[in-house]
Amino acid sequence: MIVVKTGGSRGINLDYVLEDIARQTEPLVLVHGASDELNQISEQLGKPPRMVTSPSGYTSRVTDQETLDIFTMVYCGKRNTRIVEKLQQLGVNAVGLSGVDGRLLEGRRKPNIRIVEDGRTKILRDDYTGRIERANVSLLTTLLDQGYLPVISPPAISYEGEVINIDGDRAAAVIADALGAERLVILSNTPGFLEDADDEDTLIPRIARDEIDEAIATHARDRMKKKLLGAKEALEVGVGQVILGDGRIPEPVTAALRGAGTVIG
Amino acid sequence: MIVVKTGGSRGINLDYVLEDIARQTEPLVLVHGASDELNQISEQLGKPPRMVTSPSGYTSRVTDQETLDIFTMVYCGKRNTRIVEKLQQLGVNAVGLSGVDGRLLEGRRKPNIRIVEDGRTKILRDDYTGRIERANVSLLTTLLDQGYLPVISPPAISYEGEVINIDGDRAAAVIADALGAERLVILSNTPGFLEDADDEDTLIPRIARDEIDEAIATHARDRMKKKLLGAKEALEVGVGQVILGDGRIPEPVTAALRGAGTVIG
Repeated sequence: MIVVKTGGSRGINLDYVLEDIARQTEPLVLVHGASDELNQISEQLGKPPRMVTSPSGYTSRVTDQETLDIFTMVYCGKRNTRIVEKLQQLGVNAVGLSGVDGRLLEGRRKPNIRIVEDGRTKILRDDYTGRIERANVSLLTTLLDQGYLPVISPPAISYEGEVINIDGDRAAAVIADALGAERLVILSNTPGFLEDADDEDTLIPRIARDEIDEAIATHARDRMKKKLLGAKEALEVGVGQVILGDGRIPEPVTAALRGAGTVIG
Repeated sequence: MIVVKTGGSRGINLDYVLEDIARQTEPLVLVHGASDELNQISEQLGKPPRMVTSPSGYTSRVTDQETLDIFTMVYCGKRNTRIVEKLQQLGVNAVGLSGVDGRLLEGRRKPNIRIVEDGRTKILRDDYTGRIERANVSLLTTLLDQGYLPVISPPAISYEGEVINIDGDRAAAVIADALGAERLVILSNTPGFLEDADDEDTLIPRIARDEIDEAIATHARDRMKKKLLGAKEALEVGVGQVILGDGRIPEPVTAALRGAGTVIG
């Protein structure tokens, strides 16, 4: 079993990703993002993303009810449907799901988030962001048993039944764990984890389990920091290997499974 | 087995519909529209709906690739997710699907549609509209067997694997047929089929099977004409009864199943 997460950043070649997924023979689950399109559509709708910074320095997007609707429009509507269409054209019987369907991705809504704005710490209310904690994979195993390929997108659902925005990489890690997947491939628009984020020649090909904390502390920018944290959590719960691969190249999944990119664990 | 279709027109009380669905004890599949929201979001995105008229007098929406993306954003993204969220809050383990998922709704893309514009007949290309012909319900029966309630939205997929816009009422009829459903309830923002569309006191409570053609010919406006055609087709393929019910009232599904609205067949 393999779980593949493909990001939604500019530069990722989704056609390459999907063509390569159609080539895989192992059972596979795809998790996807759509961050770049979300920014575009949000701007078009006159609701540009509002980013906030937590006291500990993480940036995240504020998600009120209107933002959540735009989020689901782009992720579950436009992007998920087009991915399923493409896979169907490639002969793969894909089924699109969000974390809300069958309570697939459950988590805790953060009721009051502390943010730093204009140098002051504030409390943010009406934010539907959360932390994914579990994947109820019986829906996935039912689909996999019948030969379908699940294509999964955030958001998740809170224990109280509210739609919540969650981190896609972490969702992929939790799914990989719940399915007992041996490997989790995370594709983004870089060759992997870079020592210098601006220099693609500084790829670090391998991070051992006990080196992750150091890598997070010394090198990682925000987005890569989240990926490494996700990788760390995935390894902790039993996923054998996390590979940060390049989503811009042909056959990106195959390349990652052969050890290109950064192999963690 | 019951199939319920709820329209997306202004006036339909979706909370009433979903609360009543949560009360039903028979296995149930929900099909939904989102036409009013589609118009709103299309306007907001600077892409107002373009309506065309066929030589035989039917109006339909032109669906190019960009329109199709907006369609899936509103139907599969925003509306479908919110319906699943609400049902989950009501304790119903709902799963949202479009006709693209698992090739659930298959149909034929109309490659070149003839339209009448400014009094002249023209050929419309780059239109992704189609006619739904079959429902591959193995995905639905798998979900129903596991206790999930499927929440289904257009679009469908063509035999060539393209996303196509289809009529939601007809989709509901084809699903009802494929599932062997005894009854199909179609909820809209009127009490049922009206002798005079502008006078709600002219409800026709019952149309026998052999009276449908006459009702279509003599009374029906465009939208109601489509509903009656859908009802006719559903009856022809074996659905026992089609009920056109009022989606604005409390307990609209229960009321329709008890014979309120227009019972056809």
